[in-house]
Amino acid sequence: MTEITFWFEFASTYSYLSAMRIEEKAKSAGVDIVWKPFLLGPIFKAQGWDTSPFNLYQSKGFYMIRDIQRIAEARGLPFRMPNPFPQNGLQAARLALAGLEDGWGPDFIKAVYKAEFGEGKPISDRETLMTALRAAGAEPSRAFARAETAEVKAALRENTDEAQRKGIFGAPSFTTGDGELFWGDDRLDQALAWSLKK
Amino acid sequence: MTEITFWFEFASTYSYLSAMRIEEKAKSAGVDIVWKPFLLGPIFKAQGWDTSPFNLYQSKGFYMIRDIQRIAEARGLPFRMPNPFPQNGLQAARLALAGLEDGWGPDFIKAVYKAEFGEGKPISDRETLMTALRAAGAEPSRAFARAETAEVKAALRENTDEAQRKGIFGAPSFTTGDGELFWGDDRLDQALAWSLKK
Repeated sequence: MTEITFWFEFASTYSYLSAMRIEEKAKSAGVDIVWKPFLLGPIFKAQGWDTSPFNLYQSKGFYMIRDIQRIAEARGLPFRMPNPFPQNGLQAARLALAGLEDGWGPDFIKAVYKAEFGEGKPISDRETLMTALRAAGAEPSRAFARAETAEVKAALRENTDEAQRKGIFGAPSFTTGDGELFWGDDRLDQALAWSLKK
Repeated sequence: MTEITFWFEFASTYSYLSAMRIEEKAKSAGVDIVWKPFLLGPIFKAQGWDTSPFNLYQSKGFYMIRDIQRIAEARGLPFRMPNPFPQNGLQAARLALAGLEDGWGPDFIKAVYKAEFGEGKPISDRETLMTALRAAGAEPSRAFARAETAEVKAALRENTDEAQRKGIFGAPSFTTGDGELFWGDDRLDQALAWSLKK
């Protein structure tokens, strides 16, 4: 089956929008999803940014919140910004990698995003992560142990390096087998359609 | 009739996409368009940028070109980047203001964008502007004289100040009567639908 790669960062608001709808969209298009957590921090740092552009550029930050409010409302999604923003998504990303090996990845990823941007919860707190793990049917102590292995840590660094090599500069991004890059939740349909092109 | 305000900057690639389709879209939605040329330069400067973000952030610049190629191809629009980018759109913006008073504004605006991003022509060259004026049915010497008046110059500065007050940080942007702001060609449909909400 055709596939697209879904590049997401747990701190990213627009990644929340895509995470909550990509399975349904991809299923109805007949496309498989490769879930790829990565970190925007090192990519932003390489462009000289030490935080989210939504903090650096105030008008853009205000606009992003309103834009997501409107979209979330139209899609029937709850939306609440966590404080502080951006959240530190390092441990969530490592746990997601453990879950993607183990079968509970997508459910855990959605549970984290829901807690973070649906309820405004801190996702570096062990309690939020425990709740998301349990919701996804994972065994928390095994998952945390796996997330701390050198292998998982290296895999997350490699995802981030690969994102950078592919020219990814924001999240969510989508890449197709033939090397096309699409950026933003508003490009999801286009990315799926492209992946099906003969 | 309901209206939306279309904020555009002649140097902006995504404004080209919107300028070429907004009339048809607005007409079929039954919405009037208020055309508002403004300058992004002062707005970018206020955020510490001395050129387009597509030049400052290379990955974003590469992506933007590919994104527009794909969209332009799907819409049957020619696309060619001018060199240098961004172009200086000051005089085109002043002429557009003269044309918006005089009835030939939209045709002139589209002719400038077509020359700039359909053919890669320099839009600060008098020849490009003359051709666009003639294509729009304007009388060039009268138009240039009007564009140089203190009144037109002040109107462009006022548009730019108003954009800044409204929190506009990029182009194209769309605003509705009830104060909503939408940014990007990919928000045009949403802006039109919003303007029709009761």
